[in-house]
Amino acid sequence: MARHVKRLAIIGQGLIGSSITRAAHLNGSAQEIVVTDASEKVRARVKDLGIGQASVVETMEEAVRDADLAIICVPVGQIAAVARACLPRMKGGAVLSDVGSVKRNLVEKILPFVPGHVSFVPAHPLAGTEFSGPDAGQSRLFEKRWCILTPAGEADPKAVAMVVRFWESLGSAVSVMSPLQHDYALSLTSHLPHLAAFSIFHTALKYEKDLNSEVIKYSAGGFRDFTRIAASSPEMWRDIFIDNKNQILAVLGDFIADLKRMAVAIENEDGPAIVDMLSVSRLTRRKVIEKEHISAAKKKTGVVSPIKRPYSND
Amino acid sequence: MARHVKRLAIIGQGLIGSSITRAAHLNGSAQEIVVTDASEKVRARVKDLGIGQASVVETMEEAVRDADLAIICVPVGQIAAVARACLPRMKGGAVLSDVGSVKRNLVEKILPFVPGHVSFVPAHPLAGTEFSGPDAGQSRLFEKRWCILTPAGEADPKAVAMVVRFWESLGSAVSVMSPLQHDYALSLTSHLPHLAAFSIFHTALKYEKDLNSEVIKYSAGGFRDFTRIAASSPEMWRDIFIDNKNQILAVLGDFIADLKRMAVAIENEDGPAIVDMLSVSRLTRRKVIEKEHISAAKKKTGVVSPIKRPYSND
Repeated sequence: MARHVKRLAIIGQGLIGSSITRAAHLNGSAQEIVVTDASEKVRARVKDLGIGQASVVETMEEAVRDADLAIICVPVGQIAAVARACLPRMKGGAVLSDVGSVKRNLVEKILPFVPGHVSFVPAHPLAGTEFSGPDAGQSRLFEKRWCILTPAGEADPKAVAMVVRFWESLGSAVSVMSPLQHDYALSLTSHLPHLAAFSIFHTALKYEKDLNSEVIKYSAGGFRDFTRIAASSPEMWRDIFIDNKNQILAVLGDFIADLKRMAVAIENEDGPAIVDMLSVSRLTRRKVIEKEHISAAKKKTGVVSPIKRPYSND
Repeated sequence: MARHVKRLAIIGQGLIGSSITRAAHLNGSAQEIVVTDASEKVRARVKDLGIGQASVVETMEEAVRDADLAIICVPVGQIAAVARACLPRMKGGAVLSDVGSVKRNLVEKILPFVPGHVSFVPAHPLAGTEFSGPDAGQSRLFEKRWCILTPAGEADPKAVAMVVRFWESLGSAVSVMSPLQHDYALSLTSHLPHLAAFSIFHTALKYEKDLNSEVIKYSAGGFRDFTRIAASSPEMWRDIFIDNKNQILAVLGDFIADLKRMAVAIENEDGPAIVDMLSVSRLTRRKVIEKEHISAAKKKTGVVSPIKRPYSND
C-alpha cells in the first residue's frame, strides 16, 4: 500500500501548478497543500482566489520543508535550478517530482544532487490548454489523461507508488517508462507536430508578404487546427526543443525525408505511391481512435504497476 | 440584380452535394431542386431520406436539362469528365459550377468545352467534415464559411452574380479571385497542412515498428489534432496533390527549407533564432483569430463584389 500524502508542496502556480492544487483539493489527495510562486503577484492572486484552500508561502524552501511530496511546476528551463535549491531542505523519506515536458536531460542535471534520504520521481502529465497563469487552472484538467513517470536512479519503489497513487487520485492513467523512452514518444506525438505547425506558419507568412495577398483568412479545417497548436509560448518550446535536441533532430530528419519522398511522388504524379503513403496514415489514425476508446472505457484501469513492471534508465 | 435560380441541379450527393441540397431547400435558394448520383444506392438513399425534397433522377444529362444553375459535386478527379458530359445538354443562359478543391488545372480542362450559351463559374466552398455520403450532409455546413469563386474565361457578370447570390443565400461569405490565386491560397492553408499531417503519421508509424513500442497512445494535444486532419480520403488527397502539383511543390520546398533552418538552430542550441521563428507563428495566429472575429461579426458583409472587383485569370 502506497503511503498517503500528508503534506503536498507545489512550486509554481501557473496553469499546471494551479490545476494540480485545485485537483488535489477536489479529490482529497493530500491532507494539507502548501504552494508558492516566484511572482508576488501570482502568490497574491492564488490567495485571493483561494485556490485549493492552499497555504501560500513566500519561498520554495519554506514550501518543501516537511512536505511528503513536492512537485515542481515551473517552466522546463528552470526546473533543474529549482530542484537543486529544494532538495537539501527536504525531510527524510520525502519525494520530489516535477511536470516537465522533457525528461532525460533533466534527470541528468538533477540526479547528482538528490541526497540519499530523498527520492526523485519525475512526472509528465499529458494535459494542458492554450492559456496560462493561475486563473487558467482547472480541477479536472488531468482526468482521463496520461501521466508518464520516469523514476530516476535508485528511486524507492514506495516513493514511485506514492506518485502513481497521487496522479491516479487526480483521475489520470499512469504509465512508467525510462526518461529516454519518454523523450522519444513525446518527440513524435508532441514536439514534431508542434515544430511542423510553427514552420507552416512561417512559410504561410512569407507567402503573404511576397504575394502581398491575404492568404491566411481562408483557413478552413487543416490550418485552423494548426493555429491552435502554434498558439503556445515560444519560450516554452525553445526550452523543449533544446532539451530534447537529440530525439527531435532524429525524428525531424525522418520527417524531412518523408516529405521529400512525397514531393518526388507528386512531381512524378505517381498516384499509387501517394495513396500508399496516405493510407499508412489512415491506419495510424484508426489506432489512435481505438486507443481513445480503450482509455475512455478502461478509465483508470489502463495503469501500469510501477513496481511489477521493469523499466530501464538507459 | 442577380437572376434567381428557378431550377437547381446537383450532380453527386455525397457530403457536399447533399449538404447543398439540404441548405438550398432550407433557405429557399431555388424553386426546384433536381439531383442525381452515379450510385443507384445513393440515389435510393436520397429518396428515402427525402433530402431537400429534391427530385431524384437517374442520369446527369436529365438533371442538368432546363437547369438555371448546375453544380457538380463529384470527386475532384472526375469533375472534368462530368462537366464535358453535361455542358452540351445545358440550356441557353445556364450556369455550370462545381465544388472542387483545386481550380487552375480544372479550368484548363473544362474551358475549351464550354459553349457560348453557357457560363462556367467554378466554386470552392471551404467547408467539410471527416464524414462522407448523403447521410453525413448538413443544412448549415456552409454558414459563416468562405466560398471562393474563380470565374473562367468570358463568364457573364450576371452568371457570376447568380452564383455569388446563391452561396450567400446558404450563409457563406463569397470571395472572387483567379484560379491561380485560389490554388496558392489553398496550397498554404489546406494542402500543405494535410500533407504534413500525413507525413508525421508516416514517421510515427515507422518509429513504432522500429522501437517495437507503443508511441501513438500518448497522443496529447498536438498529435490528436493531426489525427483528425489525416482522417480524410487518400484518393481525394491524391487527386488534389496531383492537380495542384506546381503550387504544392513550391510551398513544400519552402516548408522543407524552413524545417532545415529550424533543425540547424536546434542543433546549435541557438535560443534567440528558435524564439524568433516561433514568434512569427504567434503573430500569424493572432491574425487568424482576428479574422475569425471579423468574419463572425460581419457575417455576410465580408463579401467581395465580383463585378466591381477586377480579377485576372493568369
